[in-house]
Amino acid sequence: MGRSWATLGVDLHLEPSRAGGLRRGLTDALRDAVRSGRLAPGTRLPSSRSLAADLGIARNTVAEAYADLVAEGWLTARQGSGTRVGDRVVAPPSGTAAAARRAPGRPVHSLVPGTPDLAAFPRAEWLKAARRALATAPFDALDYGDPRGRPELRAALAGYLARARGVRTGPDRVVITAGFSHALGILGRVLRARGVRTVAVESYGLDVHWSLLRDAGCATPALPYDELGTDPGGLGDAGAVLLTPAHQFPMGTPLHPDRRAAVVDWARRTGGLVLEDDYDGEFRYDRQPIGALQGLDPDRVVYLGTASKSLAPGLRLGWMVLPPALVEEVTAAKGRIDTVGALDQLTLAEFLTSGAYDRHVRSSRLRYRRRRDALAAAVTARAPGVQVTGIAAGLHALLRLPPGTEQSVVQAAAWQGLALHGLDYHRHPEAVAEPLDALVVGYGTPPDSAWAGALEALCRVLP
Amino acid sequence: MGRSWATLGVDLHLEPSRAGGLRRGLTDALRDAVRSGRLAPGTRLPSSRSLAADLGIARNTVAEAYADLVAEGWLTARQGSGTRVGDRVVAPPSGTAAAARRAPGRPVHSLVPGTPDLAAFPRAEWLKAARRALATAPFDALDYGDPRGRPELRAALAGYLARARGVRTGPDRVVITAGFSHALGILGRVLRARGVRTVAVESYGLDVHWSLLRDAGCATPALPYDELGTDPGGLGDAGAVLLTPAHQFPMGTPLHPDRRAAVVDWARRTGGLVLEDDYDGEFRYDRQPIGALQGLDPDRVVYLGTASKSLAPGLRLGWMVLPPALVEEVTAAKGRIDTVGALDQLTLAEFLTSGAYDRHVRSSRLRYRRRRDALAAAVTARAPGVQVTGIAAGLHALLRLPPGTEQSVVQAAAWQGLALHGLDYHRHPEAVAEPLDALVVGYGTPPDSAWAGALEALCRVLP
Repeated sequence: MGRSWATLGVDLHLEPSRAGGLRRGLTDALRDAVRSGRLAPGTRLPSSRSLAADLGIARNTVAEAYADLVAEGWLTARQGSGTRVGDRVVAPPSGTAAAARRAPGRPVHSLVPGTPDLAAFPRAEWLKAARRALATAPFDALDYGDPRGRPELRAALAGYLARARGVRTGPDRVVITAGFSHALGILGRVLRARGVRTVAVESYGLDVHWSLLRDAGCATPALPYDELGTDPGGLGDAGAVLLTPAHQFPMGTPLHPDRRAAVVDWARRTGGLVLEDDYDGEFRYDRQPIGALQGLDPDRVVYLGTASKSLAPGLRLGWMVLPPALVEEVTAAKGRIDTVGALDQLTLAEFLTSGAYDRHVRSSRLRYRRRRDALAAAVTARAPGVQVTGIAAGLHALLRLPPGTEQSVVQAAAWQGLALHGLDYHRHPEAVAEPLDALVVGYGTPPDSAWAGALEALCRVLP
Repeated sequence: MGRSWATLGVDLHLEPSRAGGLRRGLTDALRDAVRSGRLAPGTRLPSSRSLAADLGIARNTVAEAYADLVAEGWLTARQGSGTRVGDRVVAPPSGTAAAARRAPGRPVHSLVPGTPDLAAFPRAEWLKAARRALATAPFDALDYGDPRGRPELRAALAGYLARARGVRTGPDRVVITAGFSHALGILGRVLRARGVRTVAVESYGLDVHWSLLRDAGCATPALPYDELGTDPGGLGDAGAVLLTPAHQFPMGTPLHPDRRAAVVDWARRTGGLVLEDDYDGEFRYDRQPIGALQGLDPDRVVYLGTASKSLAPGLRLGWMVLPPALVEEVTAAKGRIDTVGALDQLTLAEFLTSGAYDRHVRSSRLRYRRRRDALAAAVTARAPGVQVTGIAAGLHALLRLPPGTEQSVVQAAAWQGLALHGLDYHRHPEAVAEPLDALVVGYGTPPDSAWAGALEALCRVLP
């Protein structure tokens, strides 16, 4: 049998095999058509009656095939809107969120947190800065470099971080890295070499960060988390603690002032070290920016930042601001020569000192704030059972779901070609807090052109 | 006493202290004037008679002060050319070449090998490539990247290395790194994790490379070196060997064809791995390029290259071409995400595919060849006891010195503000070969404007 479906409005030639039965043959053929893209996402399928007529087969066979594919997530059937091709299916059905995260193929929409809108990278401005940087750089800036990084960038960052984030430093304590992971790996090795065996972490965060510390030989127990944020009361004999004080990732709340003070007190009392991950400190919307914890005690707090959220992760540019006592060890642990490209460093220095960085952050803040407002409004309107939290800052929101629904929502999203993370993905395996059902929605991730579609796809999978 | 020396032709106000005696006061004041740059390098000093008259002191005092400063290397006294300020002194006198290498201050001339002429970095061409790369890059090229590196660069390198260096590979076996040291550190860890305890190295090379392997937990015994190059006969039960087959660093000779074959035979027989450091394979002058050893057996040789000699070390761009069996392990050891900036990778890919890389290499080759010829001619003319070797390729030459003179020549050079390395600096501490007296002269290092001066400074210190 080889027929084209006039009713689909597309010239889709279909040859369902009869070998395993007509129902299975039709199911396979439809699935293939969706998978290959011949049936576009969102396409409305003909009614089972008219398709059966088109194909010259029993209506019941078509209805059964449709039902199979809806159950598998390839098609969606909503009252009043008929049967449609799912918003592009990327994964075979699977029972777990973890499997869905490993889904092969490329999702249509991504709301995975951790990436800014890459389409908004200021290419022209960056090139201008690169041109100016290259025009003025002494030729030995292109030589093997000081492992601490280019002096131009360290000076520019010291000034910027003092002004914008309340960091207390001079250029001599700034060390440039190829992003946060690079910095954390170095710090893990330095701490371990100093005899630290335990670096406490938060109940929620990123497993890749905890892994880096464990690779360095440090245990990473989780601190409790409550409505005031991470509780440093349990720090005990930890040698250091990794925190996101300005905007807990992924919960989205700032560390309570009492807790900030308590962390610094602990560090002073025990000689412990605080690793402050200020991953999105630039993006504040509804309230005064919360300054860096480092400002409370520059001798006990290592401040860590990157250009990954403010510009793009692909730049691979990050920085540490170190207590004086650590500069030498960290520099030695980074290596004998710099590992970060000099041209990118010079360009970022120029970008900062020319004011282009501030301009870009300001315009990004405006755009992301609009998205955040649209997200909050859409979720409130279409999924009143879902609570949008943690949105005073940053590039992601926490969507609190009805209890017991997280896994199925994440799975439904994956089926629909929408990549996002459930809160469970970010939960420390030994976290003692009661599990919450929530989504971590990176609303900064899509390009502008895909934002409306991503939001629509999100709303469709919300309970 | 405060006087200006009219006879110097410069308005040099000098106030020698009389506290520790006039001779010492004058010596100190002259030394300070040289160190601070008020007395320029090469400046001819007045005769002791006229200076004594100018200053109103005894001629003998001036003559003694001059003699002190000549003995310390601040001044030079040559028959017929009077007393002159040394070619800028950078180090206090010291007894060892090692101390001279640690000399504080900035040398006037550098012939230290390992760096190309950074003033010749093709800034305009690089910016053009960056603009084209940024104009065409998909926005997700700016995302966290595949640890193997950008596909555009891996494809461009696979093509270039096959064409220019006889490397047998596809893009799937190319992994981008932040230079050679980054690559070697990764390989060391992978080899150690595979159970390799010994990576044999050459009798001459770079201690920083051996250190990286030792940091990974591998012993680095030295293979014998003779007129055919490094002798792989002693490889024994080593798990791998690090070689510079095309142009031994620093000896400057290619590995003899028999030895190339023997190395590959050893690798096949024992399952060992060859790490081929092709650090300056682009620069050939008098003979056909010697293809990469990797071409003999891509399953047993890891090919390593960088843009550090062909463009600039500051780019921090290098690459490995791996046997298929190693790709996964090496990628995992590099990390979960790429650590090398995406924009630089895209720019180098564009630089390669547009032909700008070939053009730059060709014009560089011409310039370096001219320098090499000038070096050989000058040394032959002015220091007939010195033999220039290893100059068929690369950016450095080996200058064979009369026995027993290396240390004093290196020391004299340091005093004169000329930075260079003696062969001893590159000798493996356990090398069995009889020590040779030689200089490793990086004639590619100075900018064009400083080349003649560096060559002149070199000739002056040769025996």
